[in-house]
Amino acid sequence: MKSTASLYNDYSTAMQQIADVKYASAVLQWDQETYLPAQGSHFRGQQIATLTAIAHERFTSKSLEDILLELSARSELGPEQARNVSLSLYDFEKNKKLPPAFVRQLSEAVNKSFHAWIEARRVNDFTLFAQPLEAVVELKRQEAVFLGGTADPYSTLMNDYDRGLNVATVDALFGSLRPALTGLLQQIQERPQVDDRCLHQHCNKDQQWKLGMEMLRRIGFNFEAGRQDISEHPFTINFSSQDVRVTTRIDEQDFANMLWSCIHEGGHALYEQGLPAAQYGLPLGEYCSLSIHESQSRLWENNIGRSLPFWEANFSMLAGYFPAQFSAVSLRAFYHAINKVQPSLIRTEADEITYHFHVMLRYELEKQLIEGSLQVKDIPDAWQQLYRQYLGVDVPDHKQGCLQDVHWSHGSFGYFATYSIGSLYAAQFDAAIQLKNASVYDEVRMGNLSGVHHWLRQHIYPFGRYHSSGELCNLATGEPLNAQHFVQYATQKYTEIYDIK
Amino acid sequence: MKSTASLYNDYSTAMQQIADVKYASAVLQWDQETYLPAQGSHFRGQQIATLTAIAHERFTSKSLEDILLELSARSELGPEQARNVSLSLYDFEKNKKLPPAFVRQLSEAVNKSFHAWIEARRVNDFTLFAQPLEAVVELKRQEAVFLGGTADPYSTLMNDYDRGLNVATVDALFGSLRPALTGLLQQIQERPQVDDRCLHQHCNKDQQWKLGMEMLRRIGFNFEAGRQDISEHPFTINFSSQDVRVTTRIDEQDFANMLWSCIHEGGHALYEQGLPAAQYGLPLGEYCSLSIHESQSRLWENNIGRSLPFWEANFSMLAGYFPAQFSAVSLRAFYHAINKVQPSLIRTEADEITYHFHVMLRYELEKQLIEGSLQVKDIPDAWQQLYRQYLGVDVPDHKQGCLQDVHWSHGSFGYFATYSIGSLYAAQFDAAIQLKNASVYDEVRMGNLSGVHHWLRQHIYPFGRYHSSGELCNLATGEPLNAQHFVQYATQKYTEIYDIK
Repeated sequence: MKSTASLYNDYSTAMQQIADVKYASAVLQWDQETYLPAQGSHFRGQQIATLTAIAHERFTSKSLEDILLELSARSELGPEQARNVSLSLYDFEKNKKLPPAFVRQLSEAVNKSFHAWIEARRVNDFTLFAQPLEAVVELKRQEAVFLGGTADPYSTLMNDYDRGLNVATVDALFGSLRPALTGLLQQIQERPQVDDRCLHQHCNKDQQWKLGMEMLRRIGFNFEAGRQDISEHPFTINFSSQDVRVTTRIDEQDFANMLWSCIHEGGHALYEQGLPAAQYGLPLGEYCSLSIHESQSRLWENNIGRSLPFWEANFSMLAGYFPAQFSAVSLRAFYHAINKVQPSLIRTEADEITYHFHVMLRYELEKQLIEGSLQVKDIPDAWQQLYRQYLGVDVPDHKQGCLQDVHWSHGSFGYFATYSIGSLYAAQFDAAIQLKNASVYDEVRMGNLSGVHHWLRQHIYPFGRYHSSGELCNLATGEPLNAQHFVQYATQKYTEIYDIK
Repeated sequence: MKSTASLYNDYSTAMQQIADVKYASAVLQWDQETYLPAQGSHFRGQQIATLTAIAHERFTSKSLEDILLELSARSELGPEQARNVSLSLYDFEKNKKLPPAFVRQLSEAVNKSFHAWIEARRVNDFTLFAQPLEAVVELKRQEAVFLGGTADPYSTLMNDYDRGLNVATVDALFGSLRPALTGLLQQIQERPQVDDRCLHQHCNKDQQWKLGMEMLRRIGFNFEAGRQDISEHPFTINFSSQDVRVTTRIDEQDFANMLWSCIHEGGHALYEQGLPAAQYGLPLGEYCSLSIHESQSRLWENNIGRSLPFWEANFSMLAGYFPAQFSAVSLRAFYHAINKVQPSLIRTEADEITYHFHVMLRYELEKQLIEGSLQVKDIPDAWQQLYRQYLGVDVPDHKQGCLQDVHWSHGSFGYFATYSIGSLYAAQFDAAIQLKNASVYDEVRMGNLSGVHHWLRQHIYPFGRYHSSGELCNLATGEPLNAQHFVQYATQKYTEIYDIK
């Protein structure tokens, strides 16, 4: 009989080689978004498809299954090893539940619906998208049945993004979040509104780039283990914890878009750079969940990156890059401008309060789509109605309405909630950091972020997928995830900014 | 029995998937040379190794062998299909002749010798490199025996770079080239020497970059199917004929280095962009040989790129980028400067006459190494002696002597000759172009390169590996490769420049 050590070695070698192929495919995707010449896209698509197929073939192989089953029966594994094996087996078995013919069918349907979405959006016509989307919804409902049965299909789909997350939990969280934010938003809207014109001055491209790079450096992004480039849509991607790449985009009339995108992606990247390199290719080297990933981007983007102390430390740097634009703007006015609250149509441009309404209504809609209580053709009306109800805005067209997000066209049902859940985690982590170190924001005010880094390196980064999001939160903050920390954070911050009595 | 069409389809699908993996690995290598952050190199090495192993495994698989053998027996294949199959079978069988244990041993020896070379070069001590290189030489001798028997081991190794090239041919070519160039060099040295100080003025980096990009555009590089980036050593790499990438480097004291590197790599790239996309992954979609590849870079770099007509068309552009540096320099003085002949120590910096001596003496040395008549430990003395004999220069140290090239440390024995052979092909093609179109250089003088492009698109690009280099040359020029065209070209050009009576 093979020794456990040697068997574990077989397992980790196999997993690392699968990771090599997946990360190679990720490099090809990164290149596609950043540097690929136009005519290269056809063969590039083929190259990515071949690598994806190889990785899939290896991860679903009989030989890996044998190793996983044999290892699961061994008692000599250390706790980390045992956790790796059990998570890999979980992934393996989940994969096996989906018949290859179904996977192919879904992939083809998604491909069709993605291209239909692009065209529908271009010509602002939802009907072009409706049928392909219907096919995807139907297949996602089938997928849920393959994976978890008929009891709670939408929860089953959410598991793909955050293992353990379910409708009951999210309903409860959003149930306490929504009235609190509705009340706060109403109070804000009764006050004099913030003037944010200082954010829409012309700011030179090259200077913006330098500012973004400097900001990444200041928040601790390690350029020895990563880089930043330009792409149409900002994203973070990694090819190991030692090579984590972010991208940004630059609009000369909207430097804030660039800057907070750097901080947001930088937060994702700090997490990836902090994951244990020794677990390369294994579950404990991977991020915990999309919710936790999003908590890291939002903690940096909002809790820290839109705080007054942070800008006490960094405003002079900004004014140094753009003296003509900012030497006459006060820190206070700037702080208000970057925290202006205003109901709007586009999720990705929303402030940190109204953002959650965008998410909550998408969550409601997709839950109903998967549960079968909403038909695809009725999405535009339901969208219009919920935007009126949640945000008090009228949706003038589909482009600025239900065609704005790519997610559904990709079949990503169950994803949206993790955006808001991420903010809730971020606020809860932020509170825990301050509880641990009461003067942490005094340090931030001096440009010293080590208190934040220290806490994250202790409580979040080293665990990979060892814990579920919920367990990680319990261990890191001493309590289960709840909306109160975010509500408290938001209430305190915006009561002060809007001078609410 | 499976139909031939369906079998051929299996073959091309298998080959295309292998190409997908190889090109993916090439993307990872390109990224490694251009954008990889420092800490990323460890896992990147692992990722490339895994892809290399997958491609090798698939290309040596029993299933591919069965398809190839079965297809070779079918008579219904068209000539192109038959040629693809026979070349793939040739590659397959060559691969099979090398035992896996031997391949591993060679790869480890090369890895050691490459690192030893870096260190030996750094501290200028050949003895650090001698032993690892000896091991590589010994293994390359064994490889030659595996591949072709004991009769002519060095010719066998040359086959790797140019199928059909052999010692007899190269000896004959160099035998006529060397005395002619020796005579010409002597005549040049008796004349007043060229002043090339205009090439060593300070030229701003950003302007150099723009100049290089403009030059690539002017020679016809398609930026929709390729791009240029910066790397330590310039190279050309492709991931399909639709995505061909070149790199350059910039030294502010030596803009000529940047500019002719752009033209040189651009020539390689034009060839790759011209290969038939429909043959992606198949031999007919690949370059003919390293000699022919080099003919393409040298034709553009030297025959065209250092010609007076070319600079009649482009000198004002150069002076536009660098007015302070070139407005007082005459076209004639510039033309002389870029063609200055002077024996020197470093191959890659040599002019187009003395370059061949650098190559010929390396060819002599490595032939002797592989045939066993020269010991590795005696390389430095032999190097010193040949540099005196061929070029009349003293080699002051190993760094500027036998440690200057990476090739031997990589086990690339049989490669060097293709550099000179490439120049001979280039001159012969140049002559054929002019024979076909007597006014082609009058067009070049007007900035019109279509005559050159047209000829290359007709006679070189579309064939891939269909013909051997020798056959291609015969078909394109009507005669076998010979040194006379180069000798004639060089004699005419330098007699004029140096005003030799």
